Amino acid sequence: MTTPPDLAAAAFRTELLDAGLLIPTGVDGLYGRSAAYEQVAEGLERAISAMTAADGAERMRFPPLLSRQEFLASGYLKGFPHLAGTISCFCGNEADHRRLLQCIEADEDWSALQQPAEVVVTPAACYPVYPVVARRGPLPEAGLLVDVSSYCFRHEPSVDPCRMQMFRMREQVRIGTAAQVLAFRNAWLERGADWIRRLGVPVTTDLASDPFFGRAGKLMADGQIGQQLKFELLIPVSSADAPTACLSCNYHMTHFSEIWPLRTPDGNLAHTGCVAFGIDRLTLALFRHHGFDLNAWPADVRGQVFASEVFT
Amino acid sequence: MTTPPDLAAAAFRTELLDAGLLIPTGVDGLYGRSAAYEQVAEGLERAISAMTAADGAERMRFPPLLSRQEFLASGYLKGFPHLAGTISCFCGNEADHRRLLQCIEADEDWSALQQPAEVVVTPAACYPVYPVVARRGPLPEAGLLVDVSSYCFRHEPSVDPCRMQMFRMREQVRIGTAAQVLAFRNAWLERGADWIRRLGVPVTTDLASDPFFGRAGKLMADGQIGQQLKFELLIPVSSADAPTACLSCNYHMTHFSEIWPLRTPDGNLAHTGCVAFGIDRLTLALFRHHGFDLNAWPADVRGQVFASEVFT
Repeated sequence: MTTPPDLAAAAFRTELLDAGLLIPTGVDGLYGRSAAYEQVAEGLERAISAMTAADGAERMRFPPLLSRQEFLASGYLKGFPHLAGTISCFCGNEADHRRLLQCIEADEDWSALQQPAEVVVTPAACYPVYPVVARRGPLPEAGLLVDVSSYCFRHEPSVDPCRMQMFRMREQVRIGTAAQVLAFRNAWLERGADWIRRLGVPVTTDLASDPFFGRAGKLMADGQIGQQLKFELLIPVSSADAPTACLSCNYHMTHFSEIWPLRTPDGNLAHTGCVAFGIDRLTLALFRHHGFDLNAWPADVRGQVFASEVFT
Repeated sequence: MTTPPDLAAAAFRTELLDAGLLIPTGVDGLYGRSAAYEQVAEGLERAISAMTAADGAERMRFPPLLSRQEFLASGYLKGFPHLAGTISCFCGNEADHRRLLQCIEADEDWSALQQPAEVVVTPAACYPVYPVVARRGPLPEAGLLVDVSSYCFRHEPSVDPCRMQMFRMREQVRIGTAAQVLAFRNAWLERGADWIRRLGVPVTTDLASDPFFGRAGKLMADGQIGQQLKFELLIPVSSADAPTACLSCNYHMTHFSEIWPLRTPDGNLAHTGCVAFGIDRLTLALFRHHGFDLNAWPADVRGQVFASEVFT
C-alpha cells in the first residue's frame, strides 16, 4: 500500500509546519522560513557558489520584479498565462482614495481603481538576464555564462510544500553558439546528479516539458519532449512515488535571441540554455532525507552545506 | 553653488550605472546589481547579524509577498495607497487566453482578464511578522524580538538611486509592553548611529514622519511628529544637501495589536516598534563615501563589512 502523492505532500507540509521550519501565512504556497530552514537554503546557495567558482560566471542579482515591457516581449503569457503575476497600483486622487477604502470596507471589487504598474513578478530567475546581455552588443567568442538567483512567482496554490507560489531559483545561464550551449547543458546532467548524490540524496534524471497552458500548450510540450530540450533531476521529497524536479537543465535554442538581439560575434542568432536549482525544493529534500535536526545530519553533508566558501 | 538634490541624484545614478554596480532594466527604481554591489549588501547583512548576535532575536524570513487578506487588514491602504502593489493573475479558459493575447498584440487594455490574486508585494519587511506572532497567543513576559529581512516594494519611480521601487529592508522588530518597546527604540538611536559611524560614514538623527497620502495624511504625519514616533538616521548619499534616511527607529504604539491579537501576558494590547536598516541605501552610502573600488576602502571598514560572522 502506498500513500497517494497529494495526501503524502499534505502530510509532509503538516510535519514542516509543526516543526516550525515553515511558518503559515494563511495562503497555500506562501510560507515564512525559520532560522534553521534559512541556514540550509543559504548553505545550498554557498555550496553552489563553491562548486561553480572556477566556471567564470558573471554574477548578477535582480530584485524579484521584472519590467512589464520586457515580460510582455518575452512571450511568457503565450505559454504560461495561468502562472504569471502582474502588479497594479493606485494612481488616483483623494476622492478616488475614499472610494477605494469604501469598496474595501464593503467587500466590493476595487480593481477599477488600480492601474497596471511598470513591473510584474519575476517568473524565472533568468528572465531579466537576456535583455541586459542583448543591450551590450554582440557576445564575445567564448559566449557568456551568468549566475543569477531570485525569488520567483508562480500562481499555483497547492498543499505540496514543494510547489510554492514564491520560491528561490538559482540559475547558471549560458549564452553562445548552439555547440557551446548544448555542451554546457549536457555536462550539467551528470554534474548536477553527482552533486545531488554527494548531498546524500537519491536522484533520477528524466526528459521533461514545461507546464504550457491549454491544448495548444500540449503540442508545445510534445515538441519540447521530441527535441529533448528539457531534462529534470528528480528527488523523492513530498512523495516517494512522485519525485520532485529539484534541478532542470534547459536548452532554449533561439527562443530568446528572436526576442532580444542576442548575437554571436559573426552576427548569428545566439542560442541560450540554463541550469536551474530549486533552492527551496533542495532544502526540503535535505530535510526529508536527513531529518529535521541539522546536528544529526551526516558529517559530510553538513560539511558541504555549512562549510563552503561564501564568495566566488 | 550647490547642485539641486534631484540633479545630484541623477548624476550619482549615472555614475553607478556607468561603473556597472547597478544594471539598468528600463524602469526607474528597478535595477540589477553587480557582484561587487551584492558583496557589500550581503556583507552589511552579516555585519548586522554579528552586531545583534547577543540580542536573542528569533530569525524569520518571508518571501517578498504578503497575504492579501492580512495586507488589507493592516490598514496600509489607508495611509499609503499610492505606494502599494497588488498582484493579479489570469484564471480564464482557452478562449479568454486568445483574447488576452489579442489585447496585448493590439496594445489594448487587458485588465478585465486579470483577477486579484491572494497575495500582494510586501511593503515593509515587518508586515508578515505581526499576524504570525499573534497566532501564537499571548507574549512571554520578556516580550519578543524578531529579526526579518526582505525585498520590499514601493511604487515611486525616481531617478534617485536611493529611492528604488524594489529594495532590501532588514528589521529588528520588538513586541511587548510600552516600556519594553520604547527602551528598545530609544537605545537603537545611539546604537545605530554608532554603528554607522564605525562604517566611516557621517550620520545625523532627525525626527521624521511616514509619507502618508493626501491632506488627511498630512494630519497623520503631524501627529506622528508630535508624538515623536519615528526617528531617522540620515546619511548624505545622493546629495550632500538632502541626506537620505538609511535607518529608521519606529514606535507604533498599539497600531498593530488593534488589528491582530498581540497581547502581553496580562492580556493587555501589546505595543510594537521596529528598527529598519535600508540595506540598499547603506550599500550606496558606502560606495559614495569610500569609492567604487572595494580594495581601496579603509581596512577597518573592509573588516567590518567583509569579515563578519555568517550565522547568528
